Amino acid sequence: MNAPLYISAPATIANLVCGFDILGLALESPHDPMRLSLSPEPGLRIKHTDGYALPTAPEKNVAGAALLALMQELEAPVGFDLVIHKEIKPGSGLGSSAASSAGAVVGANHLLGNRFSKEDLVRFAMNGEKVASGVKHADNIAPGIYGGVTLIRAIHPLDIVPIQAPPLHVAVVHPQIEVRTADARQILRNEVQLKLAIKQWGNIAGLVAGLIKGDYPLIGRSLEDVIIEPVRSILIPGFDEVKKRCQEAGSLGGGISGSGPSIFMLHEQRHTAEQVGGIMKEIYARLGIDHKVYITSVNPEGVRLSTHPFPGQEP
Amino acid sequence: MNAPLYISAPATIANLVCGFDILGLALESPHDPMRLSLSPEPGLRIKHTDGYALPTAPEKNVAGAALLALMQELEAPVGFDLVIHKEIKPGSGLGSSAASSAGAVVGANHLLGNRFSKEDLVRFAMNGEKVASGVKHADNIAPGIYGGVTLIRAIHPLDIVPIQAPPLHVAVVHPQIEVRTADARQILRNEVQLKLAIKQWGNIAGLVAGLIKGDYPLIGRSLEDVIIEPVRSILIPGFDEVKKRCQEAGSLGGGISGSGPSIFMLHEQRHTAEQVGGIMKEIYARLGIDHKVYITSVNPEGVRLSTHPFPGQEP
Repeated sequence: MNAPLYISAPATIANLVCGFDILGLALESPHDPMRLSLSPEPGLRIKHTDGYALPTAPEKNVAGAALLALMQELEAPVGFDLVIHKEIKPGSGLGSSAASSAGAVVGANHLLGNRFSKEDLVRFAMNGEKVASGVKHADNIAPGIYGGVTLIRAIHPLDIVPIQAPPLHVAVVHPQIEVRTADARQILRNEVQLKLAIKQWGNIAGLVAGLIKGDYPLIGRSLEDVIIEPVRSILIPGFDEVKKRCQEAGSLGGGISGSGPSIFMLHEQRHTAEQVGGIMKEIYARLGIDHKVYITSVNPEGVRLSTHPFPGQEP
Repeated sequence: MNAPLYISAPATIANLVCGFDILGLALESPHDPMRLSLSPEPGLRIKHTDGYALPTAPEKNVAGAALLALMQELEAPVGFDLVIHKEIKPGSGLGSSAASSAGAVVGANHLLGNRFSKEDLVRFAMNGEKVASGVKHADNIAPGIYGGVTLIRAIHPLDIVPIQAPPLHVAVVHPQIEVRTADARQILRNEVQLKLAIKQWGNIAGLVAGLIKGDYPLIGRSLEDVIIEPVRSILIPGFDEVKKRCQEAGSLGGGISGSGPSIFMLHEQRHTAEQVGGIMKEIYARLGIDHKVYITSVNPEGVRLSTHPFPGQEP
């Protein structure tokens, strides 16, 4: 029997407010524990140990679609057994599907002797996003695989640029309402005003410069989205109050994580993030909406691998 | 009599391909020599020693409008005598008006004991742009005053971010046809496709990251404008051929300088810029269009001041 590889696949925040479809950031928590083994029996078998009733047929499973894309580029057939335990709730806006896809291909590449580049792995994992949302986007996949903050400069051909970032403490609230990625995309207009687009690209340039320079005030000033947030935030009860009160409490800024409904706020100091987490809880408790709050930080490595189970993971 | 201050005000390239209205870069040449003196007689007197028949009434002169804005914030009336000799041809797309405004306010601030910040000076000089084109834009003013590459993240309130850049050699051709800034603005659509805006902000993020990291290939890949250039380049005969042939000869990339008609290309090496300058000359000679080519580099300081005339400047 082949020794299993234990995988920790991180949650990710796509868009980062002004960087719709081009920026993403990996988080330390939540993360999905996974277990992958090479098998003498060719093909792919997937098991979920969580309660989400996700499909386990490889071509319908996001991790499965990603692994199948990788396996197609191998010269000889291989076999894998994959066990997934989702901690990142599907539909949270925290890159749940991307975590499964990214974790699976990073793990498989390790078991196959690292024959693929990170860019290859992103390309494979994007097939999982296609299964999940119909669109091969990379803004959760890339930070999951590279860690830290990543820029997807272009999709055709794929051009991923790691963006160095200073320490950032992140408060995330997941109000447990349903916002489907496909719906969140549909309510966007196909055209935007040029003057708003100019404002947006000023902010994106400012955010990238602020991250690389470690200029926290510039990061804060640049965390403004004049195009997507005004439309999508309507789908998230409490959004305006959360954002306003967190900024008053010292958040650098923040907004919708991916297509929502999770909301994230960035901070220079851990204690500010903790205080902001308290505000988030208070608001959703008052609104009577089930919610989960994470106080975490940027994960600089992305998917982690181990020969031993991660804390809390079944062997 | 007060000793005159000699001023060298640089040409600038606004937009930098993908950064419409938000990015600008200062050049070593061409530059305008100017001479400014404090006078016991309050008010502002302007003289042009070039042959451009530009207005010399202070409120109609771009440098005049900039200086008047500065003088309004002084507690007591002062007097200035300003002599301008334009080397940067008006209407070239090389920030001719911005050079006059930027040079005037930087010089005046020095004579007044540096009481204003660079951001104040940009604010004053933008009044000159209003006179020149009807719009208070800062993408030529800011690099003229700060030097190097500057990001104008926002105009209200003004937020200028200097972007460090690696050495860049610039080939510029000014085909001497007329493109009025106001016309070049009018042919732009008020709305842009979201999918093109996303592509554009990926490129802007890539360009800023590439400049700060000194990653020349990334700078090159990011120098792509899918929104403005396809519309405006139609006004510039020879544009497509210049761009294609210069890139084949090793340019990192380039495009329209400001609203044109000048075209610029960026290079890692001086000799490539020189070679590209030869190609530019050859194309416009064949097209029978008068033209001027500059082989230059990034000016890291912006406006320069001296107690002695600059080379070639009259005392």
